[in-house]
Parts: sequence; C-alpha cells; structure tokens
Amino acid sequence: MSNAKVDRREEIEELARRRGFLWQAFEIYGGVAGFYDYGPLGALLKRRIEAEWRRFYGIGEGFYEIEATTIGPRDVFKASGHLKSFSDMAVVCKDCKTFFRMDEAIDIDKRCPECGGELVDAGEFNLMFQTKIGVPKGESEQNNSTGYLRPETAQGIFIDFPRLLRFNRDKLPLGVIQIGKAYRNEISPRKSIIRLREFTMAEAEVFVDPGEKNKHPGFETVKEKVLRLVPAEGAQEEKSLEQAVKSGIIANQYLGYHVARVGEFLEGIGIPGDRLRFRQHRKDEMAHYARDCWDAEFFSNRYSWMEIVGVADRGDYDLSVHASFSNTDMCVHDGPEKIIPHVIEPSFGIDRIVYALLESSLYKEQVGKQKRKVLGFKNEIAPIKAAVFPLLNRDGLKEKAVEVFQALRDEAILVEYDDSGSIGRRYRRQDEIGTPYCITIDYDTLEDGTVTIRERDTMKQVRVPVAEIKEFIA
Amino acid sequence: MSNAKVDRREEIEELARRRGFLWQAFEIYGGVAGFYDYGPLGALLKRRIEAEWRRFYGIGEGFYEIEATTIGPRDVFKASGHLKSFSDMAVVCKDCKTFFRMDEAIDIDKRCPECGGELVDAGEFNLMFQTKIGVPKGESEQNNSTGYLRPETAQGIFIDFPRLLRFNRDKLPLGVIQIGKAYRNEISPRKSIIRLREFTMAEAEVFVDPGEKNKHPGFETVKEKVLRLVPAEGAQEEKSLEQAVKSGIIANQYLGYHVARVGEFLEGIGIPGDRLRFRQHRKDEMAHYARDCWDAEFFSNRYSWMEIVGVADRGDYDLSVHASFSNTDMCVHDGPEKIIPHVIEPSFGIDRIVYALLESSLYKEQVGKQKRKVLGFKNEIAPIKAAVFPLLNRDGLKEKAVEVFQALRDEAILVEYDDSGSIGRRYRRQDEIGTPYCITIDYDTLEDGTVTIRERDTMKQVRVPVAEIKEFIA
Repeated sequence: MSNAKVDRREEIEELARRRGFLWQAFEIYGGVAGFYDYGPLGALLKRRIEAEWRRFYGIGEGFYEIEATTIGPRDVFKASGHLKSFSDMAVVCKDCKTFFRMDEAIDIDKRCPECGGELVDAGEFNLMFQTKIGVPKGESEQNNSTGYLRPETAQGIFIDFPRLLRFNRDKLPLGVIQIGKAYRNEISPRKSIIRLREFTMAEAEVFVDPGEKNKHPGFETVKEKVLRLVPAEGAQEEKSLEQAVKSGIIANQYLGYHVARVGEFLEGIGIPGDRLRFRQHRKDEMAHYARDCWDAEFFSNRYSWMEIVGVADRGDYDLSVHASFSNTDMCVHDGPEKIIPHVIEPSFGIDRIVYALLESSLYKEQVGKQKRKVLGFKNEIAPIKAAVFPLLNRDGLKEKAVEVFQALRDEAILVEYDDSGSIGRRYRRQDEIGTPYCITIDYDTLEDGTVTIRERDTMKQVRVPVAEIKEFIA
Repeated sequence: MSNAKVDRREEIEELARRRGFLWQAFEIYGGVAGFYDYGPLGALLKRRIEAEWRRFYGIGEGFYEIEATTIGPRDVFKASGHLKSFSDMAVVCKDCKTFFRMDEAIDIDKRCPECGGELVDAGEFNLMFQTKIGVPKGESEQNNSTGYLRPETAQGIFIDFPRLLRFNRDKLPLGVIQIGKAYRNEISPRKSIIRLREFTMAEAEVFVDPGEKNKHPGFETVKEKVLRLVPAEGAQEEKSLEQAVKSGIIANQYLGYHVARVGEFLEGIGIPGDRLRFRQHRKDEMAHYARDCWDAEFFSNRYSWMEIVGVADRGDYDLSVHASFSNTDMCVHDGPEKIIPHVIEPSFGIDRIVYALLESSLYKEQVGKQKRKVLGFKNEIAPIKAAVFPLLNRDGLKEKAVEVFQALRDEAILVEYDDSGSIGRRYRRQDEIGTPYCITIDYDTLEDGTVTIRERDTMKQVRVPVAEIKEFIA
C-alpha cells in the first residue's frame, strides 16, 4: 500500500470529522467498531442523496415508498433464509482472542494481524442482531418473542406484498421502494464507514411477470448506454446495454434496465463514470436468494473496487418462501393464469455512496502561495448551497449581509452566514465543505444593490443584483 | 365508552388499512403487538410531516440536524439513567399468564381483562430492547458487547455534544435536531399506533446558558399567543404565553417559547387548536431526567387526551451524567466562567401525530343521495397533491390526460392518474385519501386547452388553462 493512498484516506477522514460530516459514534465512551454518526453536514449530504434517490425512483419510475419496521419476528427471517444462511465463518486468535472473518484471515496468511498469534476456526456466526420482544421470561414466552434487526429493508416489502398488490389494483409490474436502517453484526468491522454494523439502505423491489422480463417498457430509452461490465466468467468489456442483453451477458431486459439506471443515478449525483463498473457475482459469492447479481463498484483509491449498489434478480425466491411459510397466497391472478412474480432489486448502500462522493469529490490545488482543499460536489447534493459574507463588520455591511442571508433562508435555501476571519479564510472553509457559491456584501452593495458571487471550482467572481441571487444559484 | 367512539376508531383504522396508510406489520405471520408499517400513502403523509418539521426547526430555528446510531452500547444508557430508571412495573395473570403494566392493572381493578383471572405482581421491566454487539461468547466479550436500541433519539445528541459545540464555534445557544426510530419494549401494547414498540421521534435539543433561560431572543414574537394550560397543580386555564411565564406557571422563557412554538407547528400542519392543550407533568410522572415537562395533548374521540409532544426542561442532567461517566469536559468556556448548558427539549411522537391528523381530518357528509368520507388534510401535508382523470377513455381524452399527468409529475408534483370507474367514484376515492384537487380532462380540454379542477372540501369546480394548473394547485 502506497503512502499516497494512506494519506488520501486519512485526509478524507480528518476532513469529514473536522468539518462535521462523520463522527465515530459514542466517541466519548471510546467508540464501538462499525458505528458512525452523521454530523450536521454529513446528515445534510445524506439527505440530499436520499432526496435525489426518491425523485429518481419515486417520481421518475413511479414506485411506491413504504416504511416497514426494522425489528422483525423470527418467523420472517426463518422463512427468508437469513436465519440459516446469513452468516460468516469466523476464526479467533489463540493468543489475544480477537475474532476475524475467515475470508480476511485467509488474506492475512493465518496469522493474527493484531498480535501475530495463531488463528483457529471459530465456527459460523449469524450476522443478525438478536433481541427479545415483550416480557422475556417464563411461560409468557411465545414463538414470536425472539426478534431480529433486519439485515435488509427488502423483507418488509415482501411480507407486505399482498397489501401492496391490492393497492396497485392487482396489476404488475409493481415497484416498491424503501429507505431505512439495516443491521449486520459484523465479526470484525474495521473499515471506517465502509463496513458498518448499522447502515442505511435504499432498496427498490420491482415485481414483474416472469414472462415479461424481456419486455421492459423503458428499455428503448437506455439501451444505447455503454456499460463497463465484468462478467462472472470472462474479462472486463465495454458494451452497450442492448449488446449486453442480446449477447446474454446480462440475462434479461428488466435486470439490464435497472443496471443502466443505477449507473445513471450514480453519475447523476456526481460519481465519476470512469470510476464505476458493474461486476457480476460468481456463483460462490451470490446471496442465498439471488439467481443473478451485478454490483455497481466504485474505484476507491484506498479500498480499490468496492460495491456500492447491488442489482439482483431474486426470481420468485422471496415471495415463494413467504407464501409457503405463512400459508398466504402471493400469486397474481392474471386471467386463468396464476403467477408468482419475479423480483428485480437495485439495492443501494447509502453510507458507501457518501464515502464514494467524499473521496471522488475531494481535490487540492495551489492558488497563488496557498493550497486549497475543495469538495467539488454537484450543486444538487452540496449540503450548503451558498454562504453569505459581509466584507467587513462595519458601516452597515454586516446588517445588509444578515438581511440577504435571512431572505435566502426564508426561501428555504440552505445558506450559511460567516463574518469571522479574512474573506480568504472564509472561502477556504466553504471550499472544504463543498459550498458552490459564496456571496460577499461590500460597499458597492450599499450603493447599487449588487453582490459578488464567487463560484467554488472556477473561483470566478461575478456581480449579481440582490434580487437575482436566488435565480443565479438555482 | 360509547358506540360512537368505537365506530369512529374502527372507521379510521379500516380506512387507513384499506387505503394504504397503515398496515399491521408481519400481518401474514399473524402480526406482533406494537409494530405497524406505513403503506404508500401513510409513508407519504409521514414524510410530509417530517419535511414540515425540518423546515420549522432546521430552517426556521436554524438548528443543526444530525443522524446518530439507533444501537448504543451499555455505557451510554448506564450514564443516561435509562438502565436503572426506564422501566415499568408489571403484573401477570395467574391463569392465562398475560402480562400487563401495573398502571393499567390498577385501572382494571386487579382482574385480568383477557380471562378475569387474578393479577399478581411481576416486578419491574426495563423497556429497552437489548442485543449483543459483536461475537457474543467467551473471552472476547468486552464491556461494550451489550447494546440497547435507543429509547429516545436525544442521547445521540448529548454524547456528540463536544463535537457539536466545536462545530458551532463554541457558542451558545445551540439547537440540534434528529428524526429517527426509537424503541420501547412495551409490556402490553394494545392501542394500534398509539403505543408502539418501534416508533419515530423528532427531537430538538436546545442547549442554553442557564443564566439566559429568561432571555429567549424570539420570545417577543410569540408572547401574545394564548395557550390552553393545565398546570400540575390547579385547574385548566387559558393564558397568553407572556402571562404564563410572568406568573411562573411556565418556569422560564426558553421553555415557554418552545411550548408556544410546538403549538404553532401542530396547528400549522392541521391539528385543530380546540383539540390541543398543554398539560404539565406531576412530580410523580416526570421522567428521571426532567425538571419540568409540558405535554402537548390532542383530544382524541377514542383515546381522550393523549400526549403527542413533550416539551421538557432537562436542566444539566444529561450533559452532567455523560461528563462524569465518560470523564469528558462538557462545559462551555465563556471567558473565565465554565458553564454546563441546560437543555430544553421539544420531543415529537410522529406516529401519534399521524394518528391525530387522521382522526381530526376525517369527516363525512351527505352529497345528494350519497355519503362521502373525506380526509380534510391541509394542502401542505396531503400525500397526493392532485389526481388527473380523463372524462372518458376515448376520443383522445385518455392520451391528453396522461400528458397532463406526466407534465405535472415532471415538475416533481405527486399526482395520481385514474381512469377507472365513474368520475363520481374517482372523486370519492380521492376524497378518502385527502387529495386536494381533482383535474378532469374533457372535450373542452381538446378544444380550448382548459381543464376542470374540483376542490376537495367545497366540491367547487373551476376551469383552468392547462398551463396554469401548476400555479393553481401550488
């Protein structure tokens, strides 16, 4: 690992911590691996990504959003297969008793990375957090008293499928989305926000007639898109979506459509296209519910290629197991025919996308004698849209600046006010948090009602009348 | 309890279920008490309330939003006092072994409401859901391996206070908000969405210099507001905020300001003012962390007065205990003086507010020979803003309607399209989900480019040019 990579990672984490994007959770109690909090700017950034995602899938695709519970009873995860299959093999160090995932241990050559001790097999660990629902003792214990924190938001959608289908007037296709917390009790999470025990997923479950999987109504609109694909067998290649589906690399139009749309979404929020690829899961790494899966991977300078979205063809697995375990009809009755719909699932790891955006947005450059660090966010996702500065804190400039600030805030624009330090220092602070525009109130403002707006990336300055600021930054 | 009340409740629950607002969670597995899912319309309604709340506190008050974890290690809740004090006394039926909260049992005269059996003391139950973080066995068990699901979002803000204070450049006052899931493992939840085990809270923690609690900068703007107050001692009375603080009924300006603002928020989203009051906690019902607390209560036809928001003066309790248990400096250094800030906390139960909106919005009226049911939501929180109908499915009306529908959707307006059944039936469906406007495309539309817009409550119809629809419904 080169020093440049280490620096880059530490630089991002230091900036994210210092500027209020990401903080280790329970820091005052020493922290717990796998738990992070979003500070004020991180929470804003995350919510903007979520808002774009809702716009993309909710309004753009017309999918319904629901909000299911994060705790589920044992029955749900027994049926879904998570109780049996959602586990990792672990090893433990004989000396320091630290646990590791077996696949990590193989990488590190069977020696403990903490103390060099011998690693031995420690069996299989289910990755769901377990709890008890209700009064946990004696004869009152019922079948449902054991509960789990959901390992994916998807199950809440599958078990509500009969209600959702009725809501959609018994018609397919039917798309349902959910954003929310999911949990995996990782054995040894050590990678900042890349491997969290508590994280946010945004998932879409698209229910489709299996006979229609090669007839996506929107396929024409995306078929020209060129995708960087790494099939399970064979080398990386660039192909249009249409070629990829025709040649069978991607199994069907529905899966292909959603792979392409995931790419559009990621580039739309600012992940550079040249740092994205789609990699097909090998048979031996596929989740127990999947028939096929393509990961959208982001190239991280620190972590190499890493999954940020998975697009799975779950077939009829989930509806079939829940129909069987709950003895409920999960079919769609289309004339004389009974169909169990198939599910295509784009599943986004929001925290990893936040990381990918931080890493790929950060750049440094020399400006005169000084260096500046910039988070070059797209306007749509920048946490703060604009900052307002008085040039000086006297002669009525401060009052005018506060007035401009409040007028923008009243328009529900997220703006900051800053009157401390030199203008240069204030610019650098806003550059570091990715604010696209800085608005300075100076003596000319008092004379002719114009302000200086400085654009983050070009550092160009233009004079704009106060009344036109809103339009300019929109 | 009168039949009218029972009917009203069942009517709301039936409508909420049928129209996709609220569904019992895990219904296909028989459900588990205390867990509900939000269907597509419920999730939209809930998100609109949350968006208004963010606008009110985030933009309006300038408070920072953060997102902390829902799981916390034992240390956090040991310090906060929840491990010791967040519990209910329980009784159990000797015959059917059902558990009840002792305060409910006293109401029901020491007889089991399920079977009439004898109830006996069953001790104290902590209401936090417990889990294990990490590999839960042997020597690897650390102090932090026991975790709890947070019973309130507030603790995440308190333990991040040192970072938040620095983010605010070491200045007070400092307001921090959070919206998210919280959990209480209720002994016997039986009241639909009124007493949930998993629920959504929206909390603001306002950190203030204790010497400034009587100098809220915004007090002047709300002091004329008349509040219906029920003090811990004494009868209900209506008083202006100013009178209430002057006479000592409300202890200080900060607490009073936030009580009044909670009232403004609730009325702003459509809770009728005459069904709201503020009730002060008696000493014996106060949470362990509170010095004073005023509940905003909603008058429910089914449940009588019920808490929907609590506004607590938590004093320096939380920062002091965390400072002491974590050995961290939680003081603000204001010149030579060291201050532990006090906390004023408006804490909203979002699910109860959803219920209050559903109950208070529903009305029925006779229209000619038919009855209609209407959810009279304010435009700002209605899940669907408008519905678009073709008068008939022929002569190009359908195509035109789809065009109008898509144009509105492209403006990110949440619209529905419906072409099934009579116009009257389509109106009734939209009335029941609270859609403010129905837009009908008819033959005149093809001729002169105008549509009929029908307003939900007045049922008045006006003709509006297609190009002006957006403005009209905004």
